[in-house]
Amino acid sequence: MPNISERGLTAHSSPIRKLAAAAEQAKKSGKKVYHLNIGQPDILTPKAALEAVRHAHVDILAYSPSNGYPSYREKLPAYYRKFDIDIHPDEILVTSGASEGVLFTLLACLNAGESVLSPEPLYANYLGFAGMADVQVKPVATRIETGFALPDISAFHAAITPDVKAIMLCNPNNPTGALYSEATLRALGELVMEYDLYLIVDEVYREFCYSEDARFFSALNLPGLEEHVVVLDSVSKRYSACGARIGAIITRNAALRATIQKYAETRLSPPTFGQIFAEATLQTEDSYFETVTAEYKNRRDLLFQRLQAMPGVTCYRPEGAFYVFAELPIDDADRFCRWLLEDFSYQNQTVMLAPGAGFYATPGMGKRQVRFAYVLNTSDLNAAMDCLENALKAYGQRMSVAATTSAAL
Amino acid sequence: MPNISERGLTAHSSPIRKLAAAAEQAKKSGKKVYHLNIGQPDILTPKAALEAVRHAHVDILAYSPSNGYPSYREKLPAYYRKFDIDIHPDEILVTSGASEGVLFTLLACLNAGESVLSPEPLYANYLGFAGMADVQVKPVATRIETGFALPDISAFHAAITPDVKAIMLCNPNNPTGALYSEATLRALGELVMEYDLYLIVDEVYREFCYSEDARFFSALNLPGLEEHVVVLDSVSKRYSACGARIGAIITRNAALRATIQKYAETRLSPPTFGQIFAEATLQTEDSYFETVTAEYKNRRDLLFQRLQAMPGVTCYRPEGAFYVFAELPIDDADRFCRWLLEDFSYQNQTVMLAPGAGFYATPGMGKRQVRFAYVLNTSDLNAAMDCLENALKAYGQRMSVAATTSAAL
Repeated sequence: MPNISERGLTAHSSPIRKLAAAAEQAKKSGKKVYHLNIGQPDILTPKAALEAVRHAHVDILAYSPSNGYPSYREKLPAYYRKFDIDIHPDEILVTSGASEGVLFTLLACLNAGESVLSPEPLYANYLGFAGMADVQVKPVATRIETGFALPDISAFHAAITPDVKAIMLCNPNNPTGALYSEATLRALGELVMEYDLYLIVDEVYREFCYSEDARFFSALNLPGLEEHVVVLDSVSKRYSACGARIGAIITRNAALRATIQKYAETRLSPPTFGQIFAEATLQTEDSYFETVTAEYKNRRDLLFQRLQAMPGVTCYRPEGAFYVFAELPIDDADRFCRWLLEDFSYQNQTVMLAPGAGFYATPGMGKRQVRFAYVLNTSDLNAAMDCLENALKAYGQRMSVAATTSAAL
Repeated sequence: MPNISERGLTAHSSPIRKLAAAAEQAKKSGKKVYHLNIGQPDILTPKAALEAVRHAHVDILAYSPSNGYPSYREKLPAYYRKFDIDIHPDEILVTSGASEGVLFTLLACLNAGESVLSPEPLYANYLGFAGMADVQVKPVATRIETGFALPDISAFHAAITPDVKAIMLCNPNNPTGALYSEATLRALGELVMEYDLYLIVDEVYREFCYSEDARFFSALNLPGLEEHVVVLDSVSKRYSACGARIGAIITRNAALRATIQKYAETRLSPPTFGQIFAEATLQTEDSYFETVTAEYKNRRDLLFQRLQAMPGVTCYRPEGAFYVFAELPIDDADRFCRWLLEDFSYQNQTVMLAPGAGFYATPGMGKRQVRFAYVLNTSDLNAAMDCLENALKAYGQRMSVAATTSAAL
């Protein structure tokens, strides 16, 4: 049998999806599983956009241009203007989800063996794409005690070595929910200017900010950084449409776009139905976002309150996205999350979480941490928290027994 | 300004799409452009499959499993059985087009710096994906004089060096239309067994074979090569549905699938609408393919006959897919194809072709060659050939003038 590649064997496993088989098994056994592991919201997708797909006149399901349908790209600037972002249609490349955008951007900005700085915990799939592109992710630590705020800019200065070509971050952050202020982004902007780095910002949670006093600020609005900034975007979270697989790379750097265009042409085109859908989402009224954001805010408050009330759980109140990254009174989150699916149930229900270690580039970090996605309605969320509360008690007793047994051996 | 990566600067340009801007310009100036450059058929997509998308009950456009919806994967084996291929749903990973399948397969089978042997001319985007995966494509020459048949197996033996980990080919072949016989595949099978290589076969044109005596034979039916064979597939050509972006990786090698699954999870999922569509295509009646194949056969015969009649054109009659790779009486196909769009018109019409050099890994090859995709109806194909016939005359005179001027300087 021919060998699997070394890079394939060591490729990062998604902490979000790697327990999927165990979850399937739990469901087959009749258990209800609350999915807080994945950012797949239960919010309804805007109906008018779904209707647009139904009513599209398609006789031949043809390729689109590699950078996306002009009709879609030409309508996107009006959306960005709501965030005071001034973008030309030519500065947008439509991708198959932000996922593809991460890969193309890494390939175009960094050579094999070069590095990208990223605050950790980080979106786990950055590690997967970095592996595919053969680039290193050099983490800059953020801490649960400070709500995963970015550290002082000196921590970034200290981490910059000659192999570092870019800083990549997600704002508002997945998996921590931290929102980075305009001041923070300006400080990062000065840094990338000083070292001539790319600043790659994944802004797919732009809509989901919950504090009155903390407003979203786009990296595209950093003056003088037109050649440095690349923004990754997606309709997945914004319109509860993860299956559309439509994202975008936005940059004013024309040479970089020309390079990414070659990668885009290699894979031919983004999905046609997804683009028809995405174009129609642009007619979504502002009231949709008001309703949805209010709903997520309620969920955040509920989740935070429930977690705060559980003994031994450390967490903070996130300002954006729809995740809480918490520390649990457990020995190992990988083991605990599998145990939740395979060996635990409460009223024939259980909860699926994403183990924390997979969100760290640093080995050994996050072992007792998990990511919660508050993508379920408050009733389900409450039921899921009931499961967790009981699970932590049962798991704690199990750990005590194990410790006693182990001590007796 | 930060540097573009070296690999980005040297990334392969798609010969199929790189003249797209010039074509757009030609159309804006009012010229009709016959697209023979791209494998985008004018054949109608099966209506029932399009209707399935219209009538799908979608409230939340959610992620699918990373390896595709089980309902789709479970129905696929019945399709493959028509080709006497016995496949289990678990042996299929659904991808965003065969394109994504090429990338994932290269990453999982080869390390950076390793090589894949491929007969050339080859599907140009293999070169693009090889660049993304940092692997070398080592060409094995096939020749227009023999209709681009594979050379004797000794040519493959001679090309195998320690860095070669796989043989990759497209059957029936894009861009040459060559169909590889069962005997040829068995010889390749013995070779990959002897050297313990992967055999990666892109079979997306499986349906399109035009000779009574040459039947398609799948690499999946090579006995004893369960761990070596990877087949790439797509609904794009089969159902005239290039915009669905649904393909598949099929392999019986479980360890390889587990590796590819990690890449699949990193990019989350293939498009949902595309999968709904693809699942519905499986109800397409055999008569659809009979009609479509007969139509392509007519087009092939027409194109071959018209090209044969043009002085200085070398071509052969292909047995499969929907391409002819021909040599034209020109100095440089890149220049000629651009000239067709920018400077030529016949009755205010012109033709777009894919320049041949981009289909070769060997520098300097294919300079006078072009790929024709016979994806237009016979009336349009005739009109396109009228354009080409006149263009070759005009370009020939232009070359003579240039040669005279150059000699006079």
